[in-house]
Amino acid sequence: MKLSELATAIGGELLGNGDIEISSVASLEDAESGDISYLALHSYSELANQTKASALISHSRVKNCQAAQILCNDPYLGFAKAMRIIYPALKPSGKISGKAEINDATIGDGSQVDSFAFIGNEVTIGKNCHIYPHAYIGNKVQIGDNCIVHSHVSIREECTIGNRVILQNGCRIGSDGYGFAKEKGKHLKIPQVGNVIIGDDVEIGANCCIDRSTLSSTIIGNGTKLDNLVQVGHNVTVGENSLLVAQVGIAGSSKIGNRVTLAGQVGVSGHLTIGDGATIGGKSGVTKDIPAETVYTGYPAIPYSSWTKLQHMMAQMLEKQEEE
Amino acid sequence: MKLSELATAIGGELLGNGDIEISSVASLEDAESGDISYLALHSYSELANQTKASALISHSRVKNCQAAQILCNDPYLGFAKAMRIIYPALKPSGKISGKAEINDATIGDGSQVDSFAFIGNEVTIGKNCHIYPHAYIGNKVQIGDNCIVHSHVSIREECTIGNRVILQNGCRIGSDGYGFAKEKGKHLKIPQVGNVIIGDDVEIGANCCIDRSTLSSTIIGNGTKLDNLVQVGHNVTVGENSLLVAQVGIAGSSKIGNRVTLAGQVGVSGHLTIGDGATIGGKSGVTKDIPAETVYTGYPAIPYSSWTKLQHMMAQMLEKQEEE
Amino acid sequence: MKLSELATAIGGELLGNGDIEISSVASLEDAESGDISYLALHSYSELANQTKASALISHSRVKNCQAAQILCNDPYLGFAKAMRIIYPALKPSGKISGKAEINDATIGDGSQVDSFAFIGNEVTIGKNCHIYPHAYIGNKVQIGDNCIVHSHVSIREECTIGNRVILQNGCRIGSDGYGFAKEKGKHLKIPQVGNVIIGDDVEIGANCCIDRSTLSSTIIGNGTKLDNLVQVGHNVTVGENSLLVAQVGIAGSSKIGNRVTLAGQVGVSGHLTIGDGATIGGKSGVTKDIPAETVYTGYPAIPYSSWTKLQHMMAQMLEKQEEE
Repeated sequence: MKLSELATAIGGELLGNGDIEISSVASLEDAESGDISYLALHSYSELANQTKASALISHSRVKNCQAAQILCNDPYLGFAKAMRIIYPALKPSGKISGKAEINDATIGDGSQVDSFAFIGNEVTIGKNCHIYPHAYIGNKVQIGDNCIVHSHVSIREECTIGNRVILQNGCRIGSDGYGFAKEKGKHLKIPQVGNVIIGDDVEIGANCCIDRSTLSSTIIGNGTKLDNLVQVGHNVTVGENSLLVAQVGIAGSSKIGNRVTLAGQVGVSGHLTIGDGATIGGKSGVTKDIPAETVYTGYPAIPYSSWTKLQHMMAQMLEKQEEE
Repeated sequence: MKLSELATAIGGELLGNGDIEISSVASLEDAESGDISYLALHSYSELANQTKASALISHSRVKNCQAAQILCNDPYLGFAKAMRIIYPALKPSGKISGKAEINDATIGDGSQVDSFAFIGNEVTIGKNCHIYPHAYIGNKVQIGDNCIVHSHVSIREECTIGNRVILQNGCRIGSDGYGFAKEKGKHLKIPQVGNVIIGDDVEIGANCCIDRSTLSSTIIGNGTKLDNLVQVGHNVTVGENSLLVAQVGIAGSSKIGNRVTLAGQVGVSGHLTIGDGATIGGKSGVTKDIPAETVYTGYPAIPYSSWTKLQHMMAQMLEKQEEE
Repeated sequence: MKLSELATAIGGELLGNGDIEISSVASLEDAESGDISYLALHSYSELANQTKASALISHSRVKNCQAAQILCNDPYLGFAKAMRIIYPALKPSGKISGKAEINDATIGDGSQVDSFAFIGNEVTIGKNCHIYPHAYIGNKVQIGDNCIVHSHVSIREECTIGNRVILQNGCRIGSDGYGFAKEKGKHLKIPQVGNVIIGDDVEIGANCCIDRSTLSSTIIGNGTKLDNLVQVGHNVTVGENSLLVAQVGIAGSSKIGNRVTLAGQVGVSGHLTIGDGATIGGKSGVTKDIPAETVYTGYPAIPYSSWTKLQHMMAQMLEKQEEE
């Protein structure tokens, strides 16, 4: 692809020779001729001067840089767009393997089902989906269009998956919620007869677990992205365009808003509400409701500004004692 | 089912019309005619007055409530019992799929084995079990009666599973313990030749890992329930009727007693003992033995009362500094 | 095997009757006649006096012990070597199951592929490997010699696995990295077109997730051992002979050195460097670079000596307040 075409496609301003052919993307250090690279932070501008990349996506003109440039207000977004153009997603083959087991299911045009995939009864799968080997799709599951279900994914009975959803390897959708009532010192299992509803444009990371609701639905809203090994308890609602980073755990019945970020290894207790736009720092433990548009950190989680003060105080106490 | 029959079955006292037909269970908010709901906490009694449920399980008579009522000393237990009656567990079909691979195994009457399940040599499976697609059952595994082995579960060689055990999707029973000896800066693998023994009425959550013992057995006692993504190291013993909430990790050779609760994301170091009836608060790190019938929290875990005092002191210090 | 032969094989000094036949290894408590046991810590010498084991591996002569002895400078290493001799790894059968699906792949002599394993196109697998049921091996994957790929492992397209690698059940190699660019409040997926490279003699625990790099490679160095449920983000490099204990999480682009130990549930933020030989205490959160050959603990992680002082100060403060 010509650099000038790429510049237009990602909405950037071209500096230099637009006739260069770009075939791949590489980091500033690894790039060779024919590659485009990007400069997200100005601290790397030294690297940009040494790169062998043929072209560079950057925020503003890099002096002394040999490469042609595409200037973008948000070079990381420009990089993302270039990646999507140069490495388009594979189109499903439309083939249904004879070694898959497909029971009473409706599968849309263009969808591919690989060997050893299991699809139950009363299942609906939309168009242009790719169901990889060893995927398990239980009875009465509904899957929209253009979804990718990677190998070893389980989608249990009656769950619903939107459009353009990506389920990474080994994630569990609709396993039983953790619900027991105590009777004479023993734990009596409460049947978990609800389901999981996953919206459009959601990605669920590898080996995540999203439990089915006891009675109604555990919900993951449109555009929300889960990293790997995330635990979502039963009856939880996660809003739209939120980010749940790796190893986050959310206990039952909590409500996570829209545009929320839970950083890695955060834990959220049950029956809480985290407001829209809130950010929780890594490894924090949330034990109370969190107001919208705030940043909380620590265990128990407190406002980030208080947490940094507390850290500072403890550092001072420590310093003082070490002086004595 | 008639409400009067349900009241008798769950051992509650009927208030109102016992001839109402109950077909499903729903939350107070979602309930419609024909549903039964429950009122676990009095704080929701407002909701109870507005519910469209035909009947309500509660601790005591709710004034102004239109619905019929079943009074139970423990309404949550009553709800659990009603759920179990209205949503009985599916009975296995007794069919062995021709697309499963079953080697030299003995499978009891009424058990169902689905396509793509793999069952090794010298395996014994009891009556009325359901082995879902893609389950892996290694050589010399023994499984009792009435067990559910969901899709993508691995049960490695020589492990033993009791009766009425539920293994949620993707849990790993008997993967190798993490055992290495250091030799000239390298880590020499120690063969892990023990097994895992799981008692009766145990539930193991999705994507949990329970490692086989080096020499003897890693043990999960009767009635213990593991939530999702729990890690149990080799040679660990967990007692009876304990609760291990999501993302808990227990390092090798520790002994967890009976009736213990480890809340979400708790970590327990190796070679420790947690006494019967102990409760460890969420996200705590246990670095010493914990006495029976106590509550510990924090990292390192300390008695809960001390932990709350410490939190209070830190909050005061912070407040003082913020005033200055 | 004769005890004298075993003593020679593990490089220890024989005390007592070398003609004893040793058939298995057991703990001091469980051992019976014909067993060899080991005494790693002198605190257990009481147990050694009571053991029924026929022989004992220990550091120095145990007085009043009936069993024959093998003296080793490092008895734990001696035990490891004895385990490896008495319980040698199973040799793969060399059989390729007709119920596996093998596309255009080259498989070395002596390798075993079990039923329901899926092997894609342009795959190379070396000699004497064992690919268990339900393993998924994507297109263009390369696997060296003498590897074990347990059931339910996913190895995604283009990843490379060295020699003598053990992949425990359900680990995910090469799932997509967590990379998104923000555009008008939504998260645009960045294609993850790199791969994962795993060196020689690596072990990856059950249900671990190692994400593929965005552009180049996520790397696990020779001899490094991962426990279960570990998360390794995209573009991470882990050096040689490091130990990543259960439930550790490493965010994207961090560099972990050689001989590093990350204890259980440690979290490492993105774009950090942990120097060679560093040890991070359990449950710590690493938010800054860590110098080589140091020990850090806490969240945020600080030098271990400072952390213990801080714990001591807090304990004193608490004690003082409890006295008041």
